[in-house]
Amino acid sequence: MNKLENIRIVLSRPSHPGNIGAAARAMKTMGLSRLYLVQPRKFPHPDAHAMSAGCTDVLDNAQVCDTLPQALQGCSLAIGMTARRREISHPVVFPREAAQLVLQQEQEVALVFGNETSGMSNEEIMLCQRLAHIPANPEYSSLNLAAAVQIIAYELRMTAETPLHKSGGKAAKMATHDEIEGFYRHLQQTLIDIEFLNPAMPGRLMSRLRRLFTRAGFQQEEINILRGILKAVNEK
Amino acid sequence: MNKLENIRIVLSRPSHPGNIGAAARAMKTMGLSRLYLVQPRKFPHPDAHAMSAGCTDVLDNAQVCDTLPQALQGCSLAIGMTARRREISHPVVFPREAAQLVLQQEQEVALVFGNETSGMSNEEIMLCQRLAHIPANPEYSSLNLAAAVQIIAYELRMTAETPLHKSGGKAAKMATHDEIEGFYRHLQQTLIDIEFLNPAMPGRLMSRLRRLFTRAGFQQEEINILRGILKAVNEK
Repeated sequence: MNKLENIRIVLSRPSHPGNIGAAARAMKTMGLSRLYLVQPRKFPHPDAHAMSAGCTDVLDNAQVCDTLPQALQGCSLAIGMTARRREISHPVVFPREAAQLVLQQEQEVALVFGNETSGMSNEEIMLCQRLAHIPANPEYSSLNLAAAVQIIAYELRMTAETPLHKSGGKAAKMATHDEIEGFYRHLQQTLIDIEFLNPAMPGRLMSRLRRLFTRAGFQQEEINILRGILKAVNEK
Repeated sequence: MNKLENIRIVLSRPSHPGNIGAAARAMKTMGLSRLYLVQPRKFPHPDAHAMSAGCTDVLDNAQVCDTLPQALQGCSLAIGMTARRREISHPVVFPREAAQLVLQQEQEVALVFGNETSGMSNEEIMLCQRLAHIPANPEYSSLNLAAAVQIIAYELRMTAETPLHKSGGKAAKMATHDEIEGFYRHLQQTLIDIEFLNPAMPGRLMSRLRRLFTRAGFQQEEINILRGILKAVNEK
Protein backbone atom coordinates (compact mmCIF):
# COMPACT_ATOMS: atom_id res chain seq x y z
CA MET A 1 0.00 0.00 0.00
CA ASN A 2 3.05 2.30 0.04
CA LYS A 3 2.11 3.70 -3.32
CA LEU A 4 -0.91 5.37 -1.73
CA GLU A 5 1.47 7.57 0.25
CA ASN A 6 2.59 9.27 -2.95
CA ILE A 7 -0.89 10.53 -3.65
CA ARG A 8 -2.11 14.02 -2.84
CA ILE A 9 -5.79 14.84 -2.80
CA VAL A 10 -6.01 18.53 -3.69
CA LEU A 11 -9.25 20.41 -3.01
CA SER A 12 -9.15 23.70 -4.83
CA ARG A 13 -11.20 26.55 -3.36
CA PRO A 14 -13.61 24.39 -1.33
CA SER A 15 -16.54 26.43 0.01
CA HIS A 16 -17.82 24.17 2.78
CA PRO A 17 -15.60 23.04 5.63
CA GLY A 18 -17.94 20.09 6.22
CA ASN A 19 -16.94 18.77 2.80
CA ILE A 20 -13.27 19.03 3.74
CA GLY A 21 -13.92 16.89 6.81
CA ALA A 22 -15.99 14.34 4.90
CA ALA A 23 -13.28 14.20 2.21
CA ALA A 24 -10.67 13.52 4.92
CA ARG A 25 -12.77 10.64 6.19
CA ALA A 26 -13.28 9.29 2.66
CA MET A 27 -9.52 9.43 2.12
CA LYS A 28 -8.59 7.71 5.33
CA THR A 29 -11.05 4.82 4.89
CA MET A 30 -9.17 3.99 1.70
CA GLY A 31 -5.68 4.55 3.10
CA LEU A 32 -4.94 8.01 1.71
CA SER A 33 -3.56 10.65 4.06
CA ARG A 34 -2.15 13.61 2.16
CA LEU A 35 -4.72 16.39 1.87
CA TYR A 36 -3.87 19.72 0.18
CA LEU A 37 -6.25 22.67 0.36
CA VAL A 38 -5.95 25.61 -2.02
CA GLN A 39 -7.60 28.74 -0.62
CA PRO A 40 -10.25 26.98 1.46
CA ARG A 41 -12.98 29.48 2.34
CA LYS A 42 -13.09 28.33 5.98
CA PHE A 43 -10.37 26.16 7.45
CA PRO A 44 -9.70 25.09 10.12
CA HIS A 45 -13.37 24.98 11.10
CA PRO A 46 -15.45 22.94 13.58
CA ASP A 47 -17.62 21.56 10.73
CA ALA A 48 -14.54 20.03 9.12
CA HIS A 49 -13.65 18.26 12.34
CA ALA A 50 -17.23 17.14 12.96
CA MET A 51 -17.57 15.62 9.48
CA SER A 52 -14.16 13.95 9.59
CA ALA A 53 -15.49 11.39 12.13
CA GLY A 54 -12.25 11.34 14.04
CA CYS A 55 -9.82 11.70 11.11
CA THR A 56 -8.25 14.73 12.74
CA ASP A 57 -4.79 13.47 11.74
CA VAL A 58 -5.62 13.99 8.07
CA LEU A 59 -6.98 17.48 8.80
CA ASP A 60 -4.10 18.41 11.11
CA ASN A 61 -1.56 17.42 8.47
CA ALA A 62 -3.42 19.12 5.62
CA GLN A 63 -1.28 21.56 3.62
CA VAL A 64 -3.01 24.86 3.05
CA CYS A 65 -1.73 26.55 -0.13
CA ASP A 66 -2.29 29.94 -1.74
CA THR A 67 -2.18 28.66 -5.29
CA LEU A 68 -2.69 25.41 -7.15
CA PRO A 69 0.90 25.39 -8.54
CA GLN A 70 2.09 25.44 -4.94
CA ALA A 71 -0.04 22.38 -4.15
CA LEU A 72 1.30 20.58 -7.23
CA GLN A 73 4.98 21.25 -6.55
CA GLY A 74 7.02 18.06 -6.87
CA CYS A 75 4.28 16.07 -8.63
CA SER A 76 5.06 14.17 -11.83
CA LEU A 77 1.38 14.00 -12.74
CA ALA A 78 -1.73 16.02 -11.89
CA ILE A 79 -5.16 14.71 -12.82
CA GLY A 80 -8.08 17.13 -12.69
CA MET A 81 -11.58 15.89 -11.93
CA THR A 82 -14.20 17.20 -14.30
CA ALA A 83 -17.95 16.76 -14.23
CA ARG A 84 -18.43 17.60 -17.88
CA ARG A 85 -16.94 17.27 -21.32
CA ARG A 86 -14.76 20.23 -22.15
CA GLU A 87 -13.55 22.08 -25.20
CA ILE A 88 -10.02 21.17 -24.31
CA SER A 89 -7.57 18.76 -25.82
CA HIS A 90 -6.85 16.96 -22.55
CA PRO A 91 -7.43 13.23 -22.63
CA VAL A 92 -10.35 12.39 -20.33
CA VAL A 93 -10.21 9.06 -18.53
CA PHE A 94 -12.52 7.15 -16.20
CA PRO A 95 -11.59 6.93 -12.50
CA ARG A 96 -10.36 3.36 -13.01
CA GLU A 97 -7.89 4.35 -15.70
CA ALA A 98 -6.89 7.37 -13.62
CA ALA A 99 -6.08 5.06 -10.72
CA GLN A 100 -3.91 2.91 -12.97
CA LEU A 101 -2.08 5.96 -14.28
CA VAL A 102 -1.52 7.24 -10.76
CA LEU A 103 -0.15 3.97 -9.43
CA GLN A 104 2.24 3.62 -12.35
CA GLN A 105 4.05 6.79 -11.31
CA GLU A 106 7.22 6.57 -9.28
CA GLN A 107 6.94 10.15 -8.05
CA GLU A 108 4.22 12.10 -6.33
CA VAL A 109 0.87 12.50 -8.00
CA ALA A 110 -2.02 14.88 -7.41
CA LEU A 111 -5.74 14.40 -7.92
CA VAL A 112 -7.34 17.82 -8.13
CA PHE A 113 -10.98 18.54 -7.24
CA GLY A 114 -12.49 21.93 -8.05
CA ASN A 115 -14.96 24.07 -6.18
CA GLU A 116 -18.32 22.47 -5.20
CA THR A 117 -20.36 24.76 -7.43
CA SER A 118 -18.13 25.96 -10.22
CA GLY A 119 -15.83 22.95 -10.59
CA MET A 120 -12.34 23.48 -11.96
CA SER A 121 -11.50 26.73 -13.71
CA ASN A 122 -9.79 26.64 -17.09
CA GLU A 123 -6.62 27.99 -15.45
CA GLU A 124 -6.68 25.10 -13.01
CA ILE A 125 -7.24 22.59 -15.77
CA MET A 126 -4.27 23.91 -17.72
CA LEU A 127 -2.09 22.91 -14.77
CA CYS A 128 -3.18 19.27 -15.07
CA GLN A 129 -1.86 16.74 -17.57
CA ARG A 130 -5.03 14.68 -17.61
CA LEU A 131 -8.69 14.93 -16.75
CA ALA A 132 -10.81 12.27 -15.12
CA HIS A 133 -14.57 12.08 -15.29
CA ILE A 134 -16.81 10.17 -12.91
CA PRO A 135 -19.74 8.86 -14.93
CA ALA A 136 -23.05 10.12 -13.60
CA ASN A 137 -26.75 10.34 -14.27
CA PRO A 138 -27.10 12.98 -17.01
CA GLU A 139 -30.36 14.12 -15.39
CA TYR A 140 -28.79 14.60 -11.97
CA SER A 141 -25.02 14.67 -11.82
CA SER A 142 -24.69 16.66 -8.61
CA LEU A 143 -22.11 14.49 -6.91
CA ASN A 144 -21.10 15.72 -3.47
CA LEU A 145 -17.40 16.72 -3.29
CA ALA A 146 -16.58 14.17 -0.58
CA ALA A 147 -18.51 11.51 -2.52
CA ALA A 148 -16.31 12.21 -5.55
CA VAL A 149 -13.22 11.91 -3.36
CA GLN A 150 -14.64 8.65 -2.00
CA ILE A 151 -15.04 7.14 -5.45
CA ILE A 152 -11.55 8.12 -6.54
CA ALA A 153 -10.01 6.92 -3.26
CA TYR A 154 -11.88 3.64 -3.62
CA GLU A 155 -10.59 3.12 -7.16
CA LEU A 156 -7.06 3.88 -6.00
CA ARG A 157 -7.32 1.34 -3.21
CA MET A 158 -8.90 -1.29 -5.47
CA THR A 159 -6.09 -0.84 -7.98
CA ALA A 160 -3.42 -0.80 -5.30
CA GLU A 161 -4.86 -3.84 -3.51
CA THR A 162 -5.58 -5.94 -6.52
CA PRO A 163 -1.97 -6.82 -7.30
CA LEU A 164 -1.39 -7.37 -3.57
CA HIS A 165 -4.07 -10.03 -3.42
CA LYS A 166 -2.83 -11.55 -6.62
CA SER A 167 0.70 -12.30 -5.61
CA GLY A 168 0.34 -13.26 -2.00
CA GLY A 169 1.36 -10.10 -0.22
CA LYS A 170 4.09 -8.78 -2.49
CA ALA A 171 2.88 -5.79 -4.49
CA ALA A 172 2.86 -6.78 -8.14
CA LYS A 173 4.33 -4.40 -10.65
CA MET A 174 1.93 -2.96 -13.18
CA ALA A 175 2.97 -3.36 -16.78
CA THR A 176 4.41 -0.33 -18.52
CA HIS A 177 3.07 1.23 -21.68
CA ASP A 178 5.87 -0.39 -23.72
CA GLU A 179 5.25 -3.84 -22.31
CA ILE A 180 1.54 -3.55 -23.02
CA GLU A 181 2.10 -2.39 -26.59
CA GLY A 182 4.67 -5.16 -27.08
CA PHE A 183 2.05 -7.68 -26.01
CA TYR A 184 -0.53 -6.28 -28.44
CA ARG A 185 1.98 -6.47 -31.32
CA HIS A 186 2.77 -10.07 -30.42
CA LEU A 187 -0.92 -10.92 -30.09
CA GLN A 188 -1.75 -9.35 -33.44
CA GLN A 189 1.05 -11.20 -35.23
CA THR A 190 -0.03 -14.50 -33.67
CA LEU A 191 -3.64 -13.93 -34.70
CA ILE A 192 -2.42 -13.34 -38.25
CA ASP A 193 -0.24 -16.47 -38.12
CA ILE A 194 -3.12 -18.70 -37.03
CA GLU A 195 -5.27 -17.07 -39.71
CA PHE A 196 -7.79 -15.67 -37.26
CA LEU A 197 -7.00 -12.11 -38.26
CA ASN A 198 -6.79 -11.14 -41.91
CA PRO A 199 -4.37 -8.20 -42.10
CA ALA A 200 -6.08 -7.00 -45.25
CA MET A 201 -9.40 -6.78 -43.39
CA PRO A 202 -8.60 -6.36 -39.72
CA GLY A 203 -12.02 -5.00 -38.71
CA ARG A 204 -12.40 -4.09 -35.05
CA LEU A 205 -10.87 -7.26 -33.62
CA MET A 206 -7.78 -5.71 -32.05
CA SER A 207 -9.69 -2.77 -30.60
CA ARG A 208 -12.19 -5.15 -29.00
CA LEU A 209 -9.44 -7.18 -27.40
CA ARG A 210 -7.78 -3.98 -26.21
CA ARG A 211 -10.97 -2.84 -24.53
CA LEU A 212 -11.37 -6.11 -22.68
CA PHE A 213 -7.81 -6.00 -21.37
CA THR A 214 -7.89 -2.26 -20.66
CA ARG A 215 -10.84 -2.79 -18.35
CA ALA A 216 -8.75 -5.25 -16.35
CA GLY A 217 -5.39 -3.45 -16.40
CA PHE A 218 -2.20 -5.48 -16.77
CA GLN A 219 0.30 -6.62 -14.22
CA GLN A 220 3.79 -7.23 -15.57
CA GLU A 221 3.53 -10.89 -14.62
CA GLU A 222 0.26 -11.28 -16.49
CA ILE A 223 1.84 -9.88 -19.64
CA ASN A 224 4.61 -12.44 -19.21
CA ILE A 225 2.10 -15.28 -18.89
CA LEU A 226 0.16 -14.15 -21.96
CA ARG A 227 3.32 -13.75 -24.03
CA GLY A 228 4.38 -17.23 -22.87
CA ILE A 229 1.10 -18.59 -24.22
CA LEU A 230 1.58 -16.75 -27.52
CA LYS A 231 5.10 -18.14 -27.77
CA ALA A 232 3.81 -21.68 -27.21
CA VAL A 233 1.25 -21.10 -29.98
CA ASN A 234 4.00 -19.73 -32.27
CA GLU A 235 6.09 -22.83 -31.71
CA LYS A 236 3.33 -25.25 -32.72
CA MET B 1 -29.56 2.08 -18.28
CA ASN B 2 -32.91 0.32 -17.79
CA LYS B 3 -31.25 -2.41 -15.78
CA LEU B 4 -30.63 0.13 -13.02
CA GLU B 5 -34.38 0.34 -12.51
CA ASN B 6 -34.43 -3.24 -11.26
CA ILE B 7 -32.15 -2.42 -8.37
CA ARG B 8 -33.32 -1.75 -4.84
CA ILE B 9 -31.05 -0.11 -2.30
CA VAL B 10 -32.19 -1.41 1.07
CA LEU B 11 -31.07 0.40 4.23
CA SER B 12 -31.81 -1.79 7.21
CA ARG B 13 -32.38 -0.05 10.55
CA PRO B 14 -30.59 3.21 9.65
CA SER B 15 -30.09 5.41 12.74
CA HIS B 16 -29.45 8.79 11.15
CA PRO B 17 -31.95 10.38 8.79
CA GLY B 18 -29.13 12.52 7.34
CA ASN B 19 -27.54 9.32 6.03
CA ILE B 20 -30.81 8.35 4.36
CA GLY B 21 -30.84 11.68 2.52
CA ALA B 22 -27.18 11.44 1.53
CA ALA B 23 -27.76 7.87 0.34
CA ALA B 24 -30.68 9.08 -1.81
CA ARG B 25 -28.40 11.68 -3.39
CA ALA B 26 -25.65 9.10 -3.95
CA MET B 27 -28.18 6.82 -5.64
CA LYS B 28 -29.64 9.46 -7.90
CA THR B 29 -26.26 10.73 -9.13
CA MET B 30 -25.66 7.23 -10.48
CA GLY B 31 -29.17 6.69 -11.85
CA LEU B 32 -30.66 4.54 -9.08
CA SER B 33 -34.08 5.48 -7.73
CA ARG B 34 -35.57 2.64 -5.67
CA LEU B 35 -34.87 3.14 -1.98
CA TYR B 36 -36.23 0.71 0.66
CA LEU B 37 -35.99 1.47 4.37
CA VAL B 38 -36.43 -1.22 7.00
CA GLN B 39 -37.40 0.22 10.39
CA PRO B 40 -35.66 3.58 9.97
CA ARG B 41 -35.28 5.21 13.38
CA LYS B 42 -36.46 8.59 12.06
CA PHE B 43 -38.14 8.94 8.69
CA PRO B 44 -39.43 11.12 7.19
CA HIS B 45 -37.20 13.72 8.81
CA PRO B 46 -35.94 17.19 7.83
CA ASP B 47 -32.29 16.00 8.01
CA ALA B 48 -33.02 13.41 5.33
CA HIS B 49 -34.42 16.09 3.04
CA ALA B 50 -31.58 18.51 3.78
CA MET B 51 -28.89 15.93 2.97
CA SER B 52 -30.64 14.72 -0.17
CA ALA B 53 -29.72 17.95 -1.98
CA GLY B 54 -32.99 18.06 -3.83
CA CYS B 55 -33.48 14.33 -4.42
CA THR B 56 -36.87 14.48 -2.76
CA ASP B 57 -38.31 12.20 -5.43
CA VAL B 58 -36.14 9.33 -4.21
CA LEU B 59 -37.17 10.01 -0.61
CA ASP B 60 -40.83 10.48 -1.45
CA ASN B 61 -40.91 7.17 -3.31
CA ALA B 62 -38.96 5.29 -0.62
CA GLN B 63 -40.70 2.13 0.61
CA VAL B 64 -40.72 1.88 4.39
CA CYS B 65 -40.89 -1.75 5.53
CA ASP B 66 -41.29 -3.46 8.89
CA THR B 67 -39.01 -6.35 8.08
CA LEU B 68 -36.16 -7.17 5.69
CA PRO B 69 -38.07 -10.06 4.05
CA GLN B 70 -40.75 -7.54 3.16
CA ALA B 71 -38.14 -5.31 1.48
CA LEU B 72 -36.73 -8.28 -0.44
CA GLN B 73 -40.06 -9.54 -1.74
CA GLY B 74 -39.88 -10.24 -5.47
CA CYS B 75 -36.08 -10.14 -5.65
CA SER B 76 -34.17 -12.93 -7.37
CA LEU B 77 -30.95 -11.95 -5.60
CA ALA B 78 -30.06 -10.08 -2.40
CA ILE B 79 -26.47 -9.04 -1.75
CA GLY B 80 -25.57 -7.95 1.77
CA MET B 81 -22.81 -5.43 2.37
CA THR B 82 -20.35 -6.46 5.03
CA ALA B 83 -17.44 -4.54 6.50
CA ARG B 84 -15.69 -7.60 7.85
CA ARG B 85 -14.93 -11.23 7.15
CA ARG B 86 -17.53 -13.49 8.70
CA GLU B 87 -17.78 -17.01 9.97
CA ILE B 88 -20.35 -17.77 7.37
CA SER B 89 -20.21 -19.80 4.23
CA HIS B 90 -21.51 -17.01 1.99
CA PRO B 91 -19.29 -16.17 -0.94
CA VAL B 92 -17.89 -12.66 -0.44
CA VAL B 93 -17.31 -10.60 -3.56
CA PHE B 94 -15.85 -7.17 -4.29
CA PRO B 95 -18.25 -4.39 -5.32
CA ARG B 96 -17.21 -4.79 -8.95
CA GLU B 97 -18.16 -8.46 -9.04
CA ALA B 98 -21.35 -7.65 -7.12
CA ALA B 99 -22.27 -5.13 -9.82
CA GLN B 100 -21.72 -7.73 -12.53
CA LEU B 101 -23.86 -10.25 -10.67
CA VAL B 102 -26.61 -7.69 -10.20
CA LEU B 103 -26.70 -6.64 -13.83
CA GLN B 104 -26.85 -10.24 -15.02
CA GLN B 105 -30.20 -10.73 -13.28
CA GLU B 106 -33.39 -10.44 -15.23
CA GLN B 107 -35.52 -9.86 -12.14
CA GLU B 108 -35.29 -7.42 -9.28
CA VAL B 109 -32.22 -7.35 -7.12
CA ALA B 110 -31.53 -5.88 -3.68
CA LEU B 111 -28.34 -4.48 -2.20
CA VAL B 112 -28.70 -4.48 1.56
CA PHE B 113 -26.82 -2.11 3.88
CA GLY B 114 -26.92 -2.70 7.65
CA ASN B 115 -27.05 -0.28 10.55
CA GLU B 116 -24.34 2.43 10.73
CA THR B 117 -22.85 1.08 13.94
CA SER B 118 -23.66 -2.60 14.13
CA GLY B 119 -23.73 -3.49 10.44
CA MET B 120 -25.85 -6.41 9.30
CA SER B 121 -27.14 -8.88 11.85
CA ASN B 122 -26.67 -12.60 11.27
CA GLU B 123 -30.42 -12.92 10.70
CA GLU B 124 -30.22 -10.27 7.99
CA ILE B 125 -27.25 -11.97 6.38
CA MET B 126 -29.08 -15.28 6.24
CA LEU B 127 -31.66 -13.60 4.00
CA CYS B 128 -28.98 -12.70 1.44
CA GLN B 129 -27.51 -15.04 -1.16
CA ARG B 130 -24.19 -13.23 -1.36
CA LEU B 131 -22.08 -10.80 0.59
CA ALA B 132 -20.07 -7.93 -0.83
CA HIS B 133 -17.16 -6.27 0.89
CA ILE B 134 -15.80 -2.81 0.11
CA PRO B 135 -12.03 -2.94 0.62
CA ALA B 136 -10.88 -0.44 3.22
CA ASN B 137 -7.96 0.69 5.31
CA PRO B 138 -7.59 -1.96 8.04
CA GLU B 139 -6.58 0.77 10.47
CA TYR B 140 -9.64 2.91 9.75
CA SER B 141 -12.48 1.23 7.94
CA SER B 142 -15.26 3.51 9.16
CA LEU B 143 -16.96 4.12 5.86
CA ASN B 144 -19.98 6.40 6.07
CA LEU B 145 -23.23 4.66 5.10
CA ALA B 146 -23.96 7.03 2.21
CA ALA B 147 -20.33 6.73 1.05
CA ALA B 148 -20.77 2.94 0.88
CA VAL B 149 -23.97 3.43 -1.13
CA GLN B 150 -22.06 5.85 -3.38
CA ILE B 151 -19.33 3.31 -4.15
CA ILE B 152 -21.81 0.53 -4.91
CA ALA B 153 -23.98 2.84 -7.02
CA TYR B 154 -20.88 4.00 -8.92
CA GLU B 155 -19.82 0.41 -9.65
CA LEU B 156 -23.33 -0.39 -10.85
CA ARG B 157 -23.30 2.58 -13.20
CA MET B 158 -19.79 1.83 -14.46
CA THR B 159 -20.79 -1.76 -15.17
CA ALA B 160 -24.07 -0.73 -16.77
CA GLU B 161 -22.42 1.97 -18.86
CA THR B 162 -19.36 0.06 -19.98
CA PRO B 163 -21.05 -2.27 -22.47
CA LEU B 164 -23.03 0.72 -23.71
CA HIS B 165 -19.86 2.60 -24.62
CA LYS B 166 -18.26 -0.47 -26.10
CA SER B 167 -20.79 -1.30 -28.73
CA GLY B 168 -21.79 2.08 -30.02
CA GLY B 169 -24.98 2.68 -28.10
CA LYS B 170 -26.46 -0.79 -28.11
CA ALA B 171 -26.19 -2.38 -24.66
CA ALA B 172 -23.95 -5.43 -24.92
CA LYS B 173 -25.02 -8.58 -23.15
CA MET B 174 -22.82 -9.71 -20.29
CA ALA B 175 -21.70 -13.32 -20.45
CA THR B 176 -23.47 -15.79 -18.19
CA HIS B 177 -21.79 -17.98 -15.60
CA ASP B 178 -22.06 -21.00 -17.90
CA GLU B 179 -20.54 -19.19 -20.86
CA ILE B 180 -17.65 -17.99 -18.74
CA GLU B 181 -16.96 -21.44 -17.30
CA GLY B 182 -17.23 -22.93 -20.80
CA PHE B 183 -14.56 -20.51 -21.95
CA TYR B 184 -12.24 -21.42 -19.07
CA ARG B 185 -12.62 -25.14 -19.85
CA HIS B 186 -11.83 -24.48 -23.51
CA LEU B 187 -8.86 -22.27 -22.56
CA GLN B 188 -7.47 -24.87 -20.17
CA GLN B 189 -7.75 -27.68 -22.73
CA THR B 190 -6.04 -25.53 -25.37
CA LEU B 191 -3.20 -24.66 -22.99
CA ILE B 192 -2.73 -28.39 -22.36
CA ASP B 193 -2.81 -29.11 -26.11
CA ILE B 194 -0.11 -26.55 -26.88
CA GLU B 195 1.91 -27.91 -23.95
CA PHE B 196 1.89 -24.63 -22.04
CA LEU B 197 0.00 -26.18 -19.15
CA ASN B 198 1.07 -29.51 -17.70
CA PRO B 199 -2.10 -31.12 -16.28
CA ALA B 200 0.06 -33.08 -13.81
CA MET B 201 1.50 -29.83 -12.43
CA PRO B 202 -1.04 -27.09 -13.17
CA GLY B 203 0.30 -24.63 -10.59
CA ARG B 204 -1.60 -21.36 -10.35
CA LEU B 205 -1.79 -20.62 -14.05
CA MET B 206 -5.56 -20.93 -14.47
CA SER B 207 -6.32 -18.96 -11.32
CA ARG B 208 -4.05 -16.16 -12.51
CA LEU B 209 -5.78 -16.00 -15.86
CA ARG B 210 -9.15 -16.07 -14.13
CA ARG B 211 -8.19 -13.11 -11.95
CA LEU B 212 -7.11 -11.05 -14.94
CA PHE B 213 -10.37 -11.70 -16.77
CA THR B 214 -12.52 -11.34 -13.65
CA ARG B 215 -11.18 -7.84 -13.17
CA ALA B 216 -12.42 -6.96 -16.64
CA GLY B 217 -15.73 -8.84 -16.66
CA PHE B 218 -16.87 -10.55 -19.85
CA GLN B 219 -19.31 -9.50 -22.48
CA GLN B 220 -20.91 -12.35 -24.40
CA GLU B 221 -19.34 -11.12 -27.60
CA GLU B 222 -15.89 -11.09 -26.04
CA ILE B 223 -16.27 -14.70 -24.97
CA ASN B 224 -17.21 -15.51 -28.56
CA ILE B 225 -14.10 -13.77 -29.90
CA LEU B 226 -11.82 -15.54 -27.43
CA ARG B 227 -13.37 -18.94 -28.16
CA GLY B 228 -12.94 -18.21 -31.87
CA ILE B 229 -9.24 -17.63 -31.25
CA LEU B 230 -8.96 -20.86 -29.25
CA LYS B 231 -10.71 -22.73 -32.05
CA ALA B 232 -8.26 -21.33 -34.60
CA VAL B 233 -5.39 -22.48 -32.37
CA ASN B 234 -6.98 -25.92 -32.01
CA GLU B 235 -7.22 -26.26 -35.79
CA LYS B 236 -3.53 -25.52 -36.37
